[in-house]
Amino acid sequence: MSAPSTPLRLGIAGLGTVGIGVVKIIQAHADLLAARAGRPVQITAICARDRQRNRDADLSGYDWVDRATDLATREDVDVVVELIGGDEGIAKDTMELALDNGKDVVTANKALLAIHGQALAERAEAAGRVIRFEAAVAGGIPVIKTMTESLAGNRIRRVMGVMNGTCNYILTRMQSAGLPYETVFEEARQLGYLEADPTLDVGGIDASHKLAILSSIAFGTRVAFDGVEIEGIERVSIDDINRAADMGYRIKLLGVAQMTARGLEQRMSPCLVPADSPLGQLEGGTNMVVIEGDAVGQIVLRGAGAGEGPTASAVLSDIIEIARGVRMPVFGQPAAGLASPQPARTAVPAAYYLRLTLADKPGALAKVATVLGDGGISIDRMRQYGHESGEAPVLIVTHKTTPEAIEHAMEVLPRTGVITGEPVELRIEEV
Amino acid sequence: MSAPSTPLRLGIAGLGTVGIGVVKIIQAHADLLAARAGRPVQITAICARDRQRNRDADLSGYDWVDRATDLATREDVDVVVELIGGDEGIAKDTMELALDNGKDVVTANKALLAIHGQALAERAEAAGRVIRFEAAVAGGIPVIKTMTESLAGNRIRRVMGVMNGTCNYILTRMQSAGLPYETVFEEARQLGYLEADPTLDVGGIDASHKLAILSSIAFGTRVAFDGVEIEGIERVSIDDINRAADMGYRIKLLGVAQMTARGLEQRMSPCLVPADSPLGQLEGGTNMVVIEGDAVGQIVLRGAGAGEGPTASAVLSDIIEIARGVRMPVFGQPAAGLASPQPARTAVPAAYYLRLTLADKPGALAKVATVLGDGGISIDRMRQYGHESGEAPVLIVTHKTTPEAIEHAMEVLPRTGVITGEPVELRIEEV
Repeated sequence: MSAPSTPLRLGIAGLGTVGIGVVKIIQAHADLLAARAGRPVQITAICARDRQRNRDADLSGYDWVDRATDLATREDVDVVVELIGGDEGIAKDTMELALDNGKDVVTANKALLAIHGQALAERAEAAGRVIRFEAAVAGGIPVIKTMTESLAGNRIRRVMGVMNGTCNYILTRMQSAGLPYETVFEEARQLGYLEADPTLDVGGIDASHKLAILSSIAFGTRVAFDGVEIEGIERVSIDDINRAADMGYRIKLLGVAQMTARGLEQRMSPCLVPADSPLGQLEGGTNMVVIEGDAVGQIVLRGAGAGEGPTASAVLSDIIEIARGVRMPVFGQPAAGLASPQPARTAVPAAYYLRLTLADKPGALAKVATVLGDGGISIDRMRQYGHESGEAPVLIVTHKTTPEAIEHAMEVLPRTGVITGEPVELRIEEV
Repeated sequence: MSAPSTPLRLGIAGLGTVGIGVVKIIQAHADLLAARAGRPVQITAICARDRQRNRDADLSGYDWVDRATDLATREDVDVVVELIGGDEGIAKDTMELALDNGKDVVTANKALLAIHGQALAERAEAAGRVIRFEAAVAGGIPVIKTMTESLAGNRIRRVMGVMNGTCNYILTRMQSAGLPYETVFEEARQLGYLEADPTLDVGGIDASHKLAILSSIAFGTRVAFDGVEIEGIERVSIDDINRAADMGYRIKLLGVAQMTARGLEQRMSPCLVPADSPLGQLEGGTNMVVIEGDAVGQIVLRGAGAGEGPTASAVLSDIIEIARGVRMPVFGQPAAGLASPQPARTAVPAAYYLRLTLADKPGALAKVATVLGDGGISIDRMRQYGHESGEAPVLIVTHKTTPEAIEHAMEVLPRTGVITGEPVELRIEEV
């Protein structure tokens, strides 16, 4: 309202896809941003590893500095925009130095926040500075703001989401083209969709960083990446994708966080979701976050989870908030007040999808059914497929049961002597 | 961050469903709200038409006042929460008086903002006060905040949405039960889903109030409810719902706002959308808003558009923002800077759905095709159904054409003498 008309001055560290996206928006929409922010938004200085690279943007009006940390100490920078990435090293040094020098920080760095979020939040609050990170989770989707602000009147029951576009691309492409994981993984690599270390994507780590950040805001707890049970998509077979589709499901790399009496459950794993649910219909690189609050019920947010424009859009929203004078604790509440969550292994019951291959022996199916029954697992639906080379694939959808019961059954089943190969189990998440 | 620990004191005007929902959240989540807001949130005084009514909440701790306007002048009220409704009278008087007396205002009143938004915004800004209204549009869905803050780095291209749950209930119930409009309308009335004046719902007026508010924020223009082309759902027949379904579409009461070279197009009308699109799959009372920005691409927000919890959740988010010290111009930019939009009749081309009944005459279809062809309208798909009592229903999906061309064809077609009854046209909105 009474925002100062002095410009907000930015130092941008990192001129990759997102950094250049931010520069382009600031250049293209200067008037719009000034009207909305109540003051001009200007770039003072920039920094990137390779100064010579052609970046498809006019950078001549900005001071180049050699090291990102130089941005953190400049008098003419109010906000350091950290778009370097990585959970250690130069990104962390730059952010810490910026806070210590009285700068606010805007970042897209989920790894850094997932691992050092508590220390950084305490540091920011001690310095009276803010760290904003809308771009760190689900790209252009305003999930941080929605959780921190729009749902502040709610006790959050559960947060879940598909938050790694590369994994969702691989899974939907496997299904639509009927191709095995390895082939589509290679395609994704050639398309440049994978991180330099692809385990970050397909191993579920990147998505788990995001989930840990969301959990912290949702439940008012310290960010606890270590508490996420992580399983990637590497073991998802085209067989399971096809069989799940037969039963009316899709397989998604789904993150789920919920607070239970036993503690904070955070899991990232390939799950079955109904094919006709919003999550089931999510195609390609699109992200979706589903938030359940006691007052609001279920809110679904969907949009592009990565890419130049969407991620830069999120960075700009944070910059404009700072320009407007909005000051928020990093995780929505003062960092000192955040409780250390008690991590809990998944215990919330769910239906499960099981795929077994029965040996061609009389009474094989009865034996499987007995193991499940003895373990307290009841069967909702079962399909036995025709014998292929003497072995019969069997699909089972269970009624709701505990992860413990399923785990036990998966140990016992191979010892019955009536199944061949490893049985597969996948959780069916209610959405 | 340095939020004062003095309580934020509320005066609540109106204790209907939403008002009581707000009271219940504040009572149930006092600690949570204080942690998130940085200070306690307290109710000081309340007001409702009927003091004796049983409201399923303990109101004994609050001062009752006789008139809502009394809340606006109390020393011990910081924020007046206006949940009375109506675009004139007591709601407007209360809001104006509250602003003039240095109170901030939180409201769910879309009608008031759609009609008097500009004057109220100017009044608030002159007084250095804020008006917040997340609950006015799409209930618990954080669309105001998303538009004003999260997408502030974007030039918005188009906003659209299904924003009246009652209409969406009626349309989806017609489809699922195969019932005519009149029957389902009567059901909805008996279920209490309709406003006292049902035209507000089924006539598209309530949804148009919301669209006008969104347009203002999206395009930085003065709210212009008068500029909305409004058509309700009264003329949607079960025939059209069924025929549209045959062609892969659903009929939704859809609001669309977009800025074109000719001016601001705002329309609220029954449209066809693909059955498998997010909008097409929206069932019952759920709302959905789709926002397209130049950087972010398409963002989809989905949730409950009405009801005690969702609407109260939105009211609480506004209250907590004020408690946190966040001050924002009413429509995202200073009111004085908002341009008066040039209202434009819909001219953006689209495909159209046409339903005609052909008289049983030779060459009838050829004559229809000639009229369309002469008007520059080309046919994408056509279906002629079996002759029923000598008359043949014909469905046509056109290629993209202008509303003007369609309007012209709708005038000419009855004059050909080869169709009986009124031809029906519905726009097919790309989503």
